[in-house]
Amino acid sequence: MNEFADPSTQRQHFRHLEQARAQVIELLSRQAVERELMQRTVSENRRQDVVAQLVARQHQAALETRLAHFHPADIAFVLESLDPDARDLAWALVKPERRGAVLLETSDAVRRMLVAGMAPDDIAAVVAPLDSDDIADLVGSLPDDIGQEVLQRLDNADQAEVRSMLSFPEDSVGSLMDLDFVAVREDASLEAVLRLLRRRKTLPPHTNQLFVVDRGNQLRGLLSLTRLLLADPESEVAAEMTRDTIFFYTDDRMREAVTAFEKYDLVSAPVVNLHNQVVGRITVDAIVDEIKERASTESLRQVGLSEEEDLFAPVTQSARNRWPWLGLNVLTAFVASRVIGAFEDTIAQLVALAVLMPIVASIGGNTGNQTMALVIRGLALGQLGAAQLRKMLTKELSIAALNGAVWGSALGLFTLLLYRNLPLTLVIAGATILELMVAALAGVFIPLLLQRFGRDPVMGSSVILTAITDSMGFFIFLGLAATFLI
Amino acid sequence: MNEFADPSTQRQHFRHLEQARAQVIELLSRQAVERELMQRTVSENRRQDVVAQLVARQHQAALETRLAHFHPADIAFVLESLDPDARDLAWALVKPERRGAVLLETSDAVRRMLVAGMAPDDIAAVVAPLDSDDIADLVGSLPDDIGQEVLQRLDNADQAEVRSMLSFPEDSVGSLMDLDFVAVREDASLEAVLRLLRRRKTLPPHTNQLFVVDRGNQLRGLLSLTRLLLADPESEVAAEMTRDTIFFYTDDRMREAVTAFEKYDLVSAPVVNLHNQVVGRITVDAIVDEIKERASTESLRQVGLSEEEDLFAPVTQSARNRWPWLGLNVLTAFVASRVIGAFEDTIAQLVALAVLMPIVASIGGNTGNQTMALVIRGLALGQLGAAQLRKMLTKELSIAALNGAVWGSALGLFTLLLYRNLPLTLVIAGATILELMVAALAGVFIPLLLQRFGRDPVMGSSVILTAITDSMGFFIFLGLAATFLI
Repeated sequence: MNEFADPSTQRQHFRHLEQARAQVIELLSRQAVERELMQRTVSENRRQDVVAQLVARQHQAALETRLAHFHPADIAFVLESLDPDARDLAWALVKPERRGAVLLETSDAVRRMLVAGMAPDDIAAVVAPLDSDDIADLVGSLPDDIGQEVLQRLDNADQAEVRSMLSFPEDSVGSLMDLDFVAVREDASLEAVLRLLRRRKTLPPHTNQLFVVDRGNQLRGLLSLTRLLLADPESEVAAEMTRDTIFFYTDDRMREAVTAFEKYDLVSAPVVNLHNQVVGRITVDAIVDEIKERASTESLRQVGLSEEEDLFAPVTQSARNRWPWLGLNVLTAFVASRVIGAFEDTIAQLVALAVLMPIVASIGGNTGNQTMALVIRGLALGQLGAAQLRKMLTKELSIAALNGAVWGSALGLFTLLLYRNLPLTLVIAGATILELMVAALAGVFIPLLLQRFGRDPVMGSSVILTAITDSMGFFIFLGLAATFLI
Repeated sequence: MNEFADPSTQRQHFRHLEQARAQVIELLSRQAVERELMQRTVSENRRQDVVAQLVARQHQAALETRLAHFHPADIAFVLESLDPDARDLAWALVKPERRGAVLLETSDAVRRMLVAGMAPDDIAAVVAPLDSDDIADLVGSLPDDIGQEVLQRLDNADQAEVRSMLSFPEDSVGSLMDLDFVAVREDASLEAVLRLLRRRKTLPPHTNQLFVVDRGNQLRGLLSLTRLLLADPESEVAAEMTRDTIFFYTDDRMREAVTAFEKYDLVSAPVVNLHNQVVGRITVDAIVDEIKERASTESLRQVGLSEEEDLFAPVTQSARNRWPWLGLNVLTAFVASRVIGAFEDTIAQLVALAVLMPIVASIGGNTGNQTMALVIRGLALGQLGAAQLRKMLTKELSIAALNGAVWGSALGLFTLLLYRNLPLTLVIAGATILELMVAALAGVFIPLLLQRFGRDPVMGSSVILTAITDSMGFFIFLGLAATFLI
């Protein structure tokens, strides 16, 4: 984004910017409301309407100037913070030549909404000035038919590059690489490399090293800018480069790249094809975006929400987004209810059972979620091999037994004080121990099984776990009660 | 960590490394088991024991060689993946001069465990070769008394720097900055700067720009390495530097730095004190660690677990870690149970109520968690100003009403088919609508209130929400039933 970085947006301390951004959001929101009011009063008083329009236009000009000084990432932030009316207003104020850069910074949901109002010709005009990797990023997030129409309007070279980027699987390093990099030969002198660079006038952002390749464009090593600056200009690239380096294949998963960047504190790394030819570069800004994206969606996915929900999408659309998991939840809650239904006679004989059974289920749900959060984290960090897994399972079951004994006794005591019924006391204590062990098993195995079957181990995990701990909690408690009390 | 980066660890494709790491973990785990077996058989057969020890020593030498070729981050990974026995074994195999670098890469929990077995003198010897910012990082994560003892054993200059770093609040930019940076004067020529750099022989890792300061060490601008390489060596720093730049104060929150690095794709940024004097640098590797750390702990915090739990901590310690929130959960489940207890007579008259009531509570819990995940995300992204909040609340309440009507009707239908009781059907449909609205309110306000009272908006949020949706679900459903059915 460096080419758009207006100095005045990066001035001084970035907190000023936050204030400016908040003001613009406030102004735009107010304007959207004013416009609506204006439209309502149009028929009532024509003259008042003209004045209002003049005032609105003045505001608009002022806003346009302020937006023009914002970094594209800040404009994207403003757009994401606005409801659809104000968002349209703001989008109209962004200069056409900056729209591509702004689209690159928005979330997919907001991007699709902004683009939905544009003709394919306009979209093509907006994206054409961008690099082909950025175009691929944008086009890849559009609905297929619109994406194809936009592609057909690009020139042939761009089209070919974009199509090749789009052919990489989602979440692969290839799909997120940067095609712009500087390659040099082993036998060149540093002096010659410096001359080459000066002719280029500029380096791609995040260039901390040059890629050393042979005639066949195969990766031979890396030359850091630091060496280039500090070493004797007469020396050869081969003498100053690092031969052993981390690189990625285009079909490596981004997850692997994230781990490597995090561990080895990288800024950039070469991406090669199956013939070890350098085809691109992966840079730390893509890694930061990737981590941030995953981080901000994990809790959403846990409750079965897709990562893409726009905060200001229409109510009906958002409501429907939640239906699949809500429907599953209704179904599993119904199953849990049938478990209770099977013990209706038992409950009819001892209503205290109905009063106490949700306690067992609730504790199971919460402790199961604790175990599951630890397992999901272990999976994400790659710490759960077969040996570790066995240890962890034993450990979680032991914790469940211990905590079940401690808190089961506490619950037993409550029960004894309330109902003066010793057998009932023993039943609730025993049920708590068993339920916590079931919850530990569910917490360990749900994410593992989801992953084993090629699913996201986080998606909906919390809904599935609660379904199991609820049904089993009721079954264990009422089953023990029916056996020993009635 | 660059000084320790052994070329052979970074060789070729990093997947080889993953395999090597897995092998080492496997070997170490097996050795720990063998050692234990050996100790048990000591008295039984002395000769067999000697042979076993010899074999073990051979293994140990081979392992030591392999570990010596690992990057400190990979050794840290191995240590974190091992149970305590094998971990001690592995720690003993790490060369003393690399232990400081390894400690820097481990999680706090594992770090404390490794250090617990060392004398303050040994710890001081291990950390002394590190930079003072890294020493501060390590010492800050040790128990206070041990930290002080270690500090007293360092030389005076290091001690002063470390103490000053430790005086910055946790999570501030100052506490995580890097003290090593290169500063130059505005009136120097690029040629002179180049000479200065060549005398240094090396640049601090992640140096993509030099800091331009005046005589009073106040920040004047930034000179990128790219400009230094590409511009005419005769020209002055003042002509090639950027004057308007992003910088941080030592007491800025890391959260702000993360946002700025993510938005503006930074690699490094200067950190200044209140007099605008440059005192350090914040680099993208610290930002990546920070994001990763937050990401991997969010779901843990949601269920009330601290981020620090070691996967292989002893059972009793882990069990006790979970007590505060488990206790809260028992308490709130008890409250929910008392709500039901208040309707014991009603349930005694119509046992179907006991069968159906958990459905209402379960749906409330899950939809409330969905809303809450969206709010927590909005807060994290800074998208929830006052205006947005009002919009979001209205939207979530509308979704709750809509989904309540849809799924409440579905539940009503189930109920009608099962119990042929129209009033009961209407009660469960009405209760579902009301419960979903309560869940939406709880989902919006729990994280907001936690934040308002200066708490982490994520910590335990899920436990608190379930407490509210359970109690309210039972109250609404049984209350409606008591009013209209009995």
